[in-house]
Amino acid sequence: MTESPGAHPAEPAHPTGNDLHLDLPATGGRRAALMAALREAIRSGRLAPGTRLPPYRALAADLGLARNTAAEAYTELVAEGWLTARQGSGTTVAERAAPAPSARARRPAPRPGPVHDLRQGRPDAASFPRTAWLAAGRRALTAAPNEAFGPGDPQGRRELRAALAEYLARARGVRTDPDRIVVCSGFAHALRLLFDGAAPGLVPAERGPLAVEAYGLGFHRGLLAAAGVGTVPLPVDEQGARVEELARHPEVRTVLLTPAHQFPTGGPLHAGRRAAVVDWARGHGGLVLEDDYDGEFRYDRQPVGAVQGLDPDRVLYLGSVSKSLTPALRLGWMVLPDHLVDRVLATKGEREGWVSALDQLTLAEFIDSGGYDRHVRRMRRRYRDRRDQLVAALAEHAPHIGVSGIAAGLHAVLRLAPGTERSVLKAAAYRGLAVDGLADYRHPAAAPETVPAVDGLVVGYATPPDHAYPSAVRALCDILPPPV
Amino acid sequence: MTESPGAHPAEPAHPTGNDLHLDLPATGGRRAALMAALREAIRSGRLAPGTRLPPYRALAADLGLARNTAAEAYTELVAEGWLTARQGSGTTVAERAAPAPSARARRPAPRPGPVHDLRQGRPDAASFPRTAWLAAGRRALTAAPNEAFGPGDPQGRRELRAALAEYLARARGVRTDPDRIVVCSGFAHALRLLFDGAAPGLVPAERGPLAVEAYGLGFHRGLLAAAGVGTVPLPVDEQGARVEELARHPEVRTVLLTPAHQFPTGGPLHAGRRAAVVDWARGHGGLVLEDDYDGEFRYDRQPVGAVQGLDPDRVLYLGSVSKSLTPALRLGWMVLPDHLVDRVLATKGEREGWVSALDQLTLAEFIDSGGYDRHVRRMRRRYRDRRDQLVAALAEHAPHIGVSGIAAGLHAVLRLAPGTERSVLKAAAYRGLAVDGLADYRHPAAAPETVPAVDGLVVGYATPPDHAYPSAVRALCDILPPPV
Repeated sequence: MTESPGAHPAEPAHPTGNDLHLDLPATGGRRAALMAALREAIRSGRLAPGTRLPPYRALAADLGLARNTAAEAYTELVAEGWLTARQGSGTTVAERAAPAPSARARRPAPRPGPVHDLRQGRPDAASFPRTAWLAAGRRALTAAPNEAFGPGDPQGRRELRAALAEYLARARGVRTDPDRIVVCSGFAHALRLLFDGAAPGLVPAERGPLAVEAYGLGFHRGLLAAAGVGTVPLPVDEQGARVEELARHPEVRTVLLTPAHQFPTGGPLHAGRRAAVVDWARGHGGLVLEDDYDGEFRYDRQPVGAVQGLDPDRVLYLGSVSKSLTPALRLGWMVLPDHLVDRVLATKGEREGWVSALDQLTLAEFIDSGGYDRHVRRMRRRYRDRRDQLVAALAEHAPHIGVSGIAAGLHAVLRLAPGTERSVLKAAAYRGLAVDGLADYRHPAAAPETVPAVDGLVVGYATPPDHAYPSAVRALCDILPPPV
Repeated sequence: MTESPGAHPAEPAHPTGNDLHLDLPATGGRRAALMAALREAIRSGRLAPGTRLPPYRALAADLGLARNTAAEAYTELVAEGWLTARQGSGTTVAERAAPAPSARARRPAPRPGPVHDLRQGRPDAASFPRTAWLAAGRRALTAAPNEAFGPGDPQGRRELRAALAEYLARARGVRTDPDRIVVCSGFAHALRLLFDGAAPGLVPAERGPLAVEAYGLGFHRGLLAAAGVGTVPLPVDEQGARVEELARHPEVRTVLLTPAHQFPTGGPLHAGRRAAVVDWARGHGGLVLEDDYDGEFRYDRQPVGAVQGLDPDRVLYLGSVSKSLTPALRLGWMVLPDHLVDRVLATKGEREGWVSALDQLTLAEFIDSGGYDRHVRRMRRRYRDRRDQLVAALAEHAPHIGVSGIAAGLHAVLRLAPGTERSVLKAAAYRGLAVDGLADYRHPAAAPETVPAVDGLVVGYATPPDHAYPSAVRALCDILPPPV
């Protein structure tokens, strides 16, 4: 690096590399810009390994930079391994094969969504209360203590657990205090915390398989299977899961139910069965997992309270904002029997936060200020209207189709003639209508003699935005088979 | 239920239960309030199982309610299993033992924190940029498409991945595109996604143990151990990890390093070693995990760029906002070699979001608008000032104590005379000063002959709020041993 600036225009372009052209942005740090440009030139292969760079003074003169700016950039890039400096031979691009350009093809563009979307499981994304949520966030974050921005409590923010304890008692009949609530990312995370084989699990060793409803979410069964937990199907009828069948499975200690609104068939668990499953848990050292996935949305009467309220030591209550507000927050909660709190926290670990404390504070404020109740009431009216539109359209265009599960929730079940479900789904696909068949929800181990197969459609009426809903309902009516 | 309202004041109080007093709130839904009050009375044991309730008309008259309000409340509570209705015998509290009151003692109140907190690993929680963050959130959520409030992409919001790709290239020399970034909850979540035994893992089966720095975070080793991944310690000197030792461990295919700022000893990985470890990975089909936990905070010169930029197909880059902004967001990222993207997404699962999409959108806007850069620059100045105060105080009060690792990051290492670390830590505890000893970070399998034990303190200077920092530094100077 003894050459003078004036020497370089006369030298050969390569391999001494004096002809190096770099486009630096007009503003910003000069040294950083030079380093970025050099890195990019090396990455792109324009400067091959072994290429000799111009002396820093020459480069500085070329680019109109201060000499020490160029010198520092070289020094830094040597420190980073991009360049090599050897006494007497100047500065060269480090001797290492430039990595091949990324071989990974761009992921294919996401397929366009269906023309009409009546899949269950999602609230209307267009109805998220942006303004009210932002206002709650502003109040919450402005008032938050500084420690809220520190590492935080894996159990969840105290503010949110207090708000939930009050809300769940009031709205869902849940009996708890904030100390028994653990905040998590939602139902899947809760299952993981309860059953993760890598850590002390739930009733370990002698836990046995889990009893689940014979119609339910395959995603949940998959999560359990991935955690090494087998499942036994309980028959489901219009009064919910036939919990008396638990007597036939002495190896079962835990049962997962959707008491407020059986998923997907739609009825609430009958009062006698609510009592019976709690009695079973008491008599057998068992545990009921209560998945209250859409308990807020009941249209024709007051919501059925949570089974958890009957015995908080035998029923583990699981909820989230995924249906009531948005799945985008990834925010849920477990209300645990006393004796499981420390075990779940031990599985979670002392440092596992997972859920944004900022969102937790915002939700606490949203609940405490009444914004959550207002939103739920607003959405209840809106979803009830949609349900009514669906029922009216079916009454007009397909009065022979039975509809059930419509007293609550975000979906209805349309019963089809035996053996017709697959052809109806095919017709829906041709029409660009996304809708699920009941068969998708059937437990693969359900025996036909105890759990009769039922043909039907699970119609989610919450998913489309308002403007797209009427045409989706029309498309549904179009593909329903005529009376036989 | 044939008695008339007028009859009940003359009847015996119990067990007919006509004397039931319930305090209903003055406002709100009457039926819901009555149901809540009855549930609470049953829960609390005030209404024992078998207790006969007053006829609904009597109760309605007592409480000034419409009769059908009381009748509906009874019907609902029967449906929920709280009450039993039998023709001719009226309505009674259901025959089931009231659950015992919660036996779980309240968790002990959190212990008060230390008087002085110089533990490493946390940014100053008081410096979170609340106003700028809220403003970014407002812009982001107002502009977001509706689908942002839907289920979302487990890989992370496109907006955030695009912002990160640009930012990491510019500020950290990372070479990526948004398709190779996976958003996660932070380093622990990333390790879990890479090594979780329950799902297709990283270089499975023939993966072998992971090489880690002989001084590092025990928390990380613990996470790896929980996932069934063994670790092999690499010696560390003032030039970072001695990666040439990898040649002695042919069973190792993966190495976890902190190249920008060895944790906790504090030096950057030497240029020759940066090149050597990439060459090792290329020659051995290996993979480098680059933990860039505090790469933004370098005080005395330009940050050392990421090793990932040398070979994006051999280096997996891990970062988060936990040091630069706040650990409360639980937001980090993985920049993956092409061939691992689909595998990590398969482990994550089609529905595992985990990270709040709302926070992701806000961070994308915070980065794109320059707010993140401004915050990092502001904190860099603040932490550098703190470091300078620490160094000046030590020069004045304990000039015999060597200080290292001070060119970057949020902590410094104070070297102590051999055999004195434990007694110094004890003195710190007596003084109410929380600070870590180097021994806490030493790999338990590190052999004394290859990894000499070093006595020292790891002093985090970012943790306390500004007003508490000078006294914490004074307390530190007080407990340092005099020259021997």
